[in-house]
Amino acid sequence: MPISADLEWCGFGIRQAGTAIGDWESFMKWDALEEEPCSLARTVAVIGDRWSLLILRECFLRRRRFEAFQSSLGITRHLLAERLKKLVRFGVLRRIPYQDSPKRYEYILTQKGLDLYPIMMSIVHWGDIHMVDSRGRPLLHEHKKCGKMFNPVMVCSECGEPVAAKGVHVHPGPGARQTPTAA
Amino acid sequence: MPISADLEWCGFGIRQAGTAIGDWESFMKWDALEEEPCSLARTVAVIGDRWSLLILRECFLRRRRFEAFQSSLGITRHLLAERLKKLVRFGVLRRIPYQDSPKRYEYILTQKGLDLYPIMMSIVHWGDIHMVDSRGRPLLHEHKKCGKMFNPVMVCSECGEPVAAKGVHVHPGPGARQTPTAA
Repeated sequence: MPISADLEWCGFGIRQAGTAIGDWESFMKWDALEEEPCSLARTVAVIGDRWSLLILRECFLRRRRFEAFQSSLGITRHLLAERLKKLVRFGVLRRIPYQDSPKRYEYILTQKGLDLYPIMMSIVHWGDIHMVDSRGRPLLHEHKKCGKMFNPVMVCSECGEPVAAKGVHVHPGPGARQTPTAA
Repeated sequence: MPISADLEWCGFGIRQAGTAIGDWESFMKWDALEEEPCSLARTVAVIGDRWSLLILRECFLRRRRFEAFQSSLGITRHLLAERLKKLVRFGVLRRIPYQDSPKRYEYILTQKGLDLYPIMMSIVHWGDIHMVDSRGRPLLHEHKKCGKMFNPVMVCSECGEPVAAKGVHVHPGPGARQTPTAA
């Protein structure tokens, strides 16, 4: 499918040239983000706030329990319960009982949650490069398979070469917003 | 540097076993996030809210002007100005004049901003896999270099093999929080 000259495009979104602004004004209603024909906006609906990202960090830290999250993050019980409920609703965490009386639950990453790892590692790596202080990186990462300290690198699934913003063309996919075509 | 048995670790954070919870309660004061010895928290200080992520999406969409951001996002002028100011302060965007009377500015991604691409693409890819509706992906990405539609893959900089959460050991780096050692 060739890139249409009618479409203004980039790596993340696509919209028809000349689309009325009004079409996009509704875009930013958070509850509707997950319905948007934009995979970035849909993901932002799940993880696009600090608490969710930091709760997920705790999960990758192998923390599982409400009290542990609360103690680590200093978040209110109400906010924490709300964010955990959201992450369970989106299938990122699974809630499993670990005690009967009173009933208590642990929260563990599902496969969908574990698949967030490249996002989390990209965030860490950017911080390692751009937000590091004079002392250097807080953590070094060792790839178990090769035994070396490594940086994450984003590559193309087809040719294995690194991918950067300016090296990508974007085409409307089957789930793109339907737009009238000029030709 | 070997992994210390005294340290509970994961891919993103590290803390000494038995550290008093109080040490971590202050962690979540947002203004202090960028000072934390955790590259994820530091990055979250920059991009860890929906507006910042969506403004950055607009920037990668090659939007540059205040009015264009506002029209696309339906964000208030006050919030938009505040977020742009923050992104400029962190060196992710650069503000350059494009008109003299009245003085008007464009906002463009710096190299530090362009380096956010793997984060943005990882977010998009997760949405493509896990948040897609029955119609399929909104967008397809073509790697200019090889000419094929691709998925981003996170690999190890040393051996080139894919990296997953369970395949990584973490070691304290030079910028880790200072902790007394047991040996």
